[in-house]
Amino acid sequence: MPMIREAIVTTLKPDGGAHMVPLGLIADGDGWIIAPFRPSPTLDNLELTPFAAASHVEDVRVFAGLLTGRRDWPLAPCAHIPVPRLADAVSHLELAVTHRSEDARRPRLHCRVLAQTSHRPFGGHNRAKLAVIELAILSTRLQMLPRDKVESEMAYLAIAVGKTAGPEEEEAWEWLVAKIGGHYAGGGD
Amino acid sequence: MPMIREAIVTTLKPDGGAHMVPLGLIADGDGWIIAPFRPSPTLDNLELTPFAAASHVEDVRVFAGLLTGRRDWPLAPCAHIPVPRLADAVSHLELAVTHRSEDARRPRLHCRVLAQTSHRPFGGHNRAKLAVIELAILSTRLQMLPRDKVESEMAYLAIAVGKTAGPEEEEAWEWLVAKIGGHYAGGGD
Repeated sequence: MPMIREAIVTTLKPDGGAHMVPLGLIADGDGWIIAPFRPSPTLDNLELTPFAAASHVEDVRVFAGLLTGRRDWPLAPCAHIPVPRLADAVSHLELAVTHRSEDARRPRLHCRVLAQTSHRPFGGHNRAKLAVIELAILSTRLQMLPRDKVESEMAYLAIAVGKTAGPEEEEAWEWLVAKIGGHYAGGGD
Repeated sequence: MPMIREAIVTTLKPDGGAHMVPLGLIADGDGWIIAPFRPSPTLDNLELTPFAAASHVEDVRVFAGLLTGRRDWPLAPCAHIPVPRLADAVSHLELAVTHRSEDARRPRLHCRVLAQTSHRPFGGHNRAKLAVIELAILSTRLQMLPRDKVESEMAYLAIAVGKTAGPEEEEAWEWLVAKIGGHYAGGGD
């Protein structure tokens, strides 16, 4: 299996603004594959401007925030592509789309790495950060999963959050819990 | 709650060799607390030589390996302390013990950061790496947990491994699965 890295992918909108979204990058030799499900603004943007930045952040509020209507995360310019990255990235990749494998549901955009840049030392693994990322992914699948499965996974993930979270992870977790609660309160199942 | 980072902590043995162990570092202002449960070679070593290196690695085989009898991970010297770090660390901390809060079960060694050094860019979050770390922690608690709980957590963690692991994470996972299987085959429950 190729490794998948969870990143915040930035692309350029037709109006020149930046579009940010959490996406799993699929390892592909020295490069990475971006493979969003249709319909996807990222796909549309990459057709127009075939460059993407992938930001690796330690502040997992960005993952939770982008899925809960909090989109105002500071950006910084990249060195080699006309697309910004997250200002707070620990490291980032600058990617150029080289070719595309077509697929009706999920086309694969093969990307070459133009640059990989470190901004700060990696702070180390934290169970709560990954629990937030797991819950963020879960929160995008509520329509597809039975409620008891969602709730039992949340209960499991909450243990690592309770034991190992700092304030940022706690806040990110609460945003996602509120989103999921709102889904069910609104009659979702 | 203070954040906990899962690191590979190195200390100096009385014979001058290095002792390596996966440990959760507890955030403590600008410093970190090392709090192993007694009995602990790390505690004994820090009494003799009050310095530790905390290596942050992306190769989670180190976590799994240290818990499954694979202890031969290359080391490199630190800059400010007489204790080596993991050669393959993405980043590492050099720590000096400043004081100690006594506790019969779990003394807390408060450490000051003498240096934090980056060796490579952070490669980004990977669900499988954290699943391996979760299973590594679980594998140290088999005596305390009911078998069906261990097996249901493994089944849950295996999903992220199946979807997002590269070869290193798959290998680390297999080492831990074999250890856990061996425990139960040996009559553990």
